[in-house]
Order: sequence, then structure tokens, then C-alpha cells
Amino acid sequence: MINTPYLLFLGDAPDQLATKVAQGIYDWRPDYSVGQLRLPGCGADLGVKDMSLAQAKAAGVKTLVIGVANRGGEISPAWRKVLVEALEMGFDIASGLHNLLRNEPELYAASQTHGTTLHDVRVPTAAYPIANGVKRTGKRCLAIGTDCSVGKMYTGLAMDAEMNRRAMKSTFRPTGQTGILITGAGVPLDAVIADFMAGAVEYLTPDNDPDHWDHIEGQGSLYHVSYSGVTMALIHGGQPDALILCHEPTRKHMRGLPGYTQPTLAQLRDTALPIAQVANPDCQVVGISVNTQHMSEAEAIEYLAGVEGEMGLPAVDPYRQGAGRLVDALLAL
Amino acid sequence: MINTPYLLFLGDAPDQLATKVAQGIYDWRPDYSVGQLRLPGCGADLGVKDMSLAQAKAAGVKTLVIGVANRGGEISPAWRKVLVEALEMGFDIASGLHNLLRNEPELYAASQTHGTTLHDVRVPTAAYPIANGVKRTGKRCLAIGTDCSVGKMYTGLAMDAEMNRRAMKSTFRPTGQTGILITGAGVPLDAVIADFMAGAVEYLTPDNDPDHWDHIEGQGSLYHVSYSGVTMALIHGGQPDALILCHEPTRKHMRGLPGYTQPTLAQLRDTALPIAQVANPDCQVVGISVNTQHMSEAEAIEYLAGVEGEMGLPAVDPYRQGAGRLVDALLAL
Repeated sequence: MINTPYLLFLGDAPDQLATKVAQGIYDWRPDYSVGQLRLPGCGADLGVKDMSLAQAKAAGVKTLVIGVANRGGEISPAWRKVLVEALEMGFDIASGLHNLLRNEPELYAASQTHGTTLHDVRVPTAAYPIANGVKRTGKRCLAIGTDCSVGKMYTGLAMDAEMNRRAMKSTFRPTGQTGILITGAGVPLDAVIADFMAGAVEYLTPDNDPDHWDHIEGQGSLYHVSYSGVTMALIHGGQPDALILCHEPTRKHMRGLPGYTQPTLAQLRDTALPIAQVANPDCQVVGISVNTQHMSEAEAIEYLAGVEGEMGLPAVDPYRQGAGRLVDALLAL
Repeated sequence: MINTPYLLFLGDAPDQLATKVAQGIYDWRPDYSVGQLRLPGCGADLGVKDMSLAQAKAAGVKTLVIGVANRGGEISPAWRKVLVEALEMGFDIASGLHNLLRNEPELYAASQTHGTTLHDVRVPTAAYPIANGVKRTGKRCLAIGTDCSVGKMYTGLAMDAEMNRRAMKSTFRPTGQTGILITGAGVPLDAVIADFMAGAVEYLTPDNDPDHWDHIEGQGSLYHVSYSGVTMALIHGGQPDALILCHEPTRKHMRGLPGYTQPTLAQLRDTALPIAQVANPDCQVVGISVNTQHMSEAEAIEYLAGVEGEMGLPAVDPYRQGAGRLVDALLAL
């Protein structure tokens, strides 16, 4: 569990795109995000208050979150100086970077000396059990994709936010670095040992109130040969009551796999539903979330109407239209 | 790669069942297995020559293989004495035990001093890549099961042995501890990090001659919620040309999952084949391997005939009947 609130560290990010993680945190948890820290040369701006470490301390910040993708994978000397200073001032630091904070001798030493915590959210922190498949109380929704990176996390966060607006019981359950930084807890599923993947998902989504919904962050795709095993473990460990199909219609091929084409939404439904019903016989496919960012508004509306007609399920782009109809579909179950 | 030949260490095994690993090595690689080493109180006997360490040295043994499941997970003082002596005499030691040889200070020190190798085959030794899904040359056969522990390893080993008898190009590719100890190399797939599972299977089964067959050891089951992600990675990383369905018809429920019933062979076929065809559009289900150990000979023959009629595929118990018809089915592809 990462302590909040956060100071979002943008470092010397060359542009807005490099601060996608910070943007995600600010978009979904503005109440956690009291300020941004930018170094000379930073080309990004979240639109939140610029703060020094001292100002952040005064504002009650507990954790500095590295919200920027670093170039070349290195933690630069310019960053290191600020990060050490933050640890000396009593801040924790959280990071989803490939190179771990704990492997930087200066940062590790400073955290030890000052009793502060380095959260490397790419690294599992718990000894997850082997899945036991026992039916859990409460409801679970899982977003699955025709491909990787089609908007599964966005869809889950949007449905969770909509349920919160309606004062319903709902929790977003992250399974990747960005999601964990946004909510402050979760399981970095792609870094879990194979035998414990499904057990880690059971651990992430324990028994809950009968009217509580977990929105489990999806990973990979049953049709993406590099990561399909992770998706499978999410479906069987998550034992979802509801599946949302996620799609990005303008892809020419599967992400990173030039020889592979995306399945249709109908294929994904027909493959995923029997698999999900192994773990939860009552599971249903309830809606479709389409990432239409590469379409015009008119194209998007037309495309969504076509999908809705063909599949007989609500089809929305939650970024354009909100997730209200997807939440309605859950409640109609 | 574990150096051969082996001395099979049975320790103080209370009974034959505790030496299943040694039995598997001796059954499938009798040429590797020049002797057994038994301690006082050992209740098992493989039927191979008893040897002291000195005799094994004289016979050219390179590696002492721990072929016994230890009680309580501890390496007992009685074992430790012999193992240290073996390292001092220049033997390597290989083990699939949960507690690692390398974590025993005396063993680690002795191996360092004497320049010998401790092979803990439960631990991955390579940095596996992320799967790229590129089509590889050569042919691959994968055994998949309605459940765990239904005879997938046995089936693959039997098909490989049959192909070797016919002087065909064939390699058994182990993905579990016992298989790795039997052949001396492989990937302990259940211990691989999630993101690299499919890549590890690609690594295990590289490009080969067009008429060469890899027999990939199956793991778990698409229907076993604890391990289905591992099975999925095997199917997509292995990109098999042929699937063999494996089944044990007397199970009351899925292994370790009292609430779950086994799928039928037809369900397994219908679930697995479209998934396999994502990675290899030419994949076919070619035969069925049934573990009939809990049936009489007459029951087994009748059951196999029934399955064969229903599924329209050769159905055999390779333990009773050999794997000849399964190999014929591969060649008919």
C-alpha cells in the first residue's frame, strides 16, 4: 500500500507523452495528486500546481511518484539528486520503472538511513498462493481485449468511477504498474511466477459484500501469443461474473506481432465465454468498449452503432461517452 | 545441460513410490542410469546395480541425481553427508526438490571448493525472451490434458521413444522437473515469470529440420483454474502442428479442485483447437492418450474403443499398447 497524497515527479520529461503515468494518476485520482515536480528542461505540464519538495512536505505529501518514463532506462544524475533529497526529507518514493529504485545504491542507502520506503511496483511484494478455485462472494467484472493496449485499464477505471458516482460499492483492482500507482495497491501480474498467477488474482479480489463490484484490470489478450497465459490466469483466477470486450478497430495487426491479425469481437466472445464459465458458470459477456481515438466523432458513432447491432450488446467508447451504459449492463445481470 | 551418465540417489526412501523420479529416469533413459545409491533403511529398489560413490566414479558417472522425494522438505543429515562426499569426489548433483541444493551452506561450499555443479532444476537458468510468435521450422506435437497429472509427460516420452525406434528425427522437450532430470535439459515452466512463459517455450523448441518432431511436455490443463495460464503459454509458445488429448477417465473431480468436474474430450478438443490455430493455423488434433491404470484390461479396451468411435481419432493407452498409433497419426498429417 502506497501512502497518499502524492507529489507527481515529471523530471526532465521531453514531452507530454513521456508523462503518461503521471497523467493517468492525475486523471483518475486528482484527490491524491496535490502537485507536480518538474526539473529544468521539462516539456510536460499536467496543469496541477508546481511544488518544491518543501512545499509538498508542507502540503502533507507522503509519497513522490515517478510519473515519467525515463530515456534509456537509466535514472539520470539530475533525477538522483532530487530523489535522494526527497528520501532525506522523509518522503517515500514509488516507481514502475524497469530499473528498480532499490538497485540504485544511493537511493537504497538514503531510504535505509531515513526510514523511508522505496516502492518498486513492478516487483511482487506478497507470496501469492496457488489458486484454489473456491467461489468467492461479491461480484467481479473483467475487461478482456482483442489485443493488448486497447483500453482495458481505462474501461475498468471508468466503470469504477461511474459506480462511485452512483454511490455503489466498487473497487478497481490493478494488475499492472500504472494501475497500481494510480490506486496505490495491486498485483504486478506480468512479474508473478507462472504457478501463482491465478492465485495472485484470487488474492487481489477476495470475498466481498454481495453487492460489491471488483473491476479487475485486464492484461494481454487470449489472442496475443506472447501474453495469452497471463490473460487466461486473469479469467480463471478472477472468476468474473461479467466480461467487457475491448477493441481498437484501426489496428493493422496484433501489437508487436506483424504476422497476426486481431480476432473479431464475435470470435473473442465465443472463445472467452466458455473459458470463463469454467470458473464461473454464470459469467456473461455484458458490453463492449471500443477505443475510437483514431476515428472522427462521426466515424466512431457509426462504428459503435454497427457493433451494437451485430453483437446485441451495448457498445460505447467510455472516453467519449462515459461508462454509464456499461454499468447499467452490469446492474441488469 | 546435466552431464551423463547418472548415479540415481534413492537415499532412505521409505517405499517405491517415493522414488518415482528415479524410476522415470531409469525407465526412459536406462543408458544414462548406471547405478543406484541406497542408504540404510531404504525400502525402494529400481533393479539397477547398487553402487558406492567410488564404484560410480570408476564406472564413469558424472552426476548424482536425487531421485527421491524427501519427507518434510528437509535435506536430512544422513543425505547431506553423502552429498558432500559426492561433491568432494567431483560429481555434479542434480535435484528437483523444492528446497534448493544451493541454499544448503555445506553443499554450496563443497561445490565451490571442488568446482562441481549443483543443478536445481526447479529454477530457470536462462533469461527467456518475450515470445515473438514467428513461425519456426520443424514439427511440434503437444500433449494437452482434460486435467493435471493424466499422463501428458508419459505420452510425449512414449511418442519420442517410438520415433527413435523408427530412426526418425525426434526430441522430447521437458517443461517440468522430472522431465528435465530424465533428459538432462529443459525449461521449468511453472517457475518462469509470467511475461516470459510463451517465450521460454519458443526458446525450448527452436527452428529444426523440416522432418524433425519436438514432443513438448504438457503442463496443467486449459480447464484447471490453478494452472491454465501455463497451459495457454505452452499452446501459443509451442505453436504445435499436432495436439494429443490426454485423459484419465476415473477422476471424480479436477485434481485438487473438488468443486470442478473434468471436461469431456470433445469439449477439450473444441476449446483447444481454435486457441492453437491462433499460433499455427494448420494445427490438428490427431489422437487421444488415455491413462487406464485404474481400469482392468477389458474395461480399458472397451473404453478406448468407445472413445475412438465417438471422436473419430486413434485412442490408446501408451502404457498398455505403446504409442505406435499416435506416431502413425502424426505421420499421416
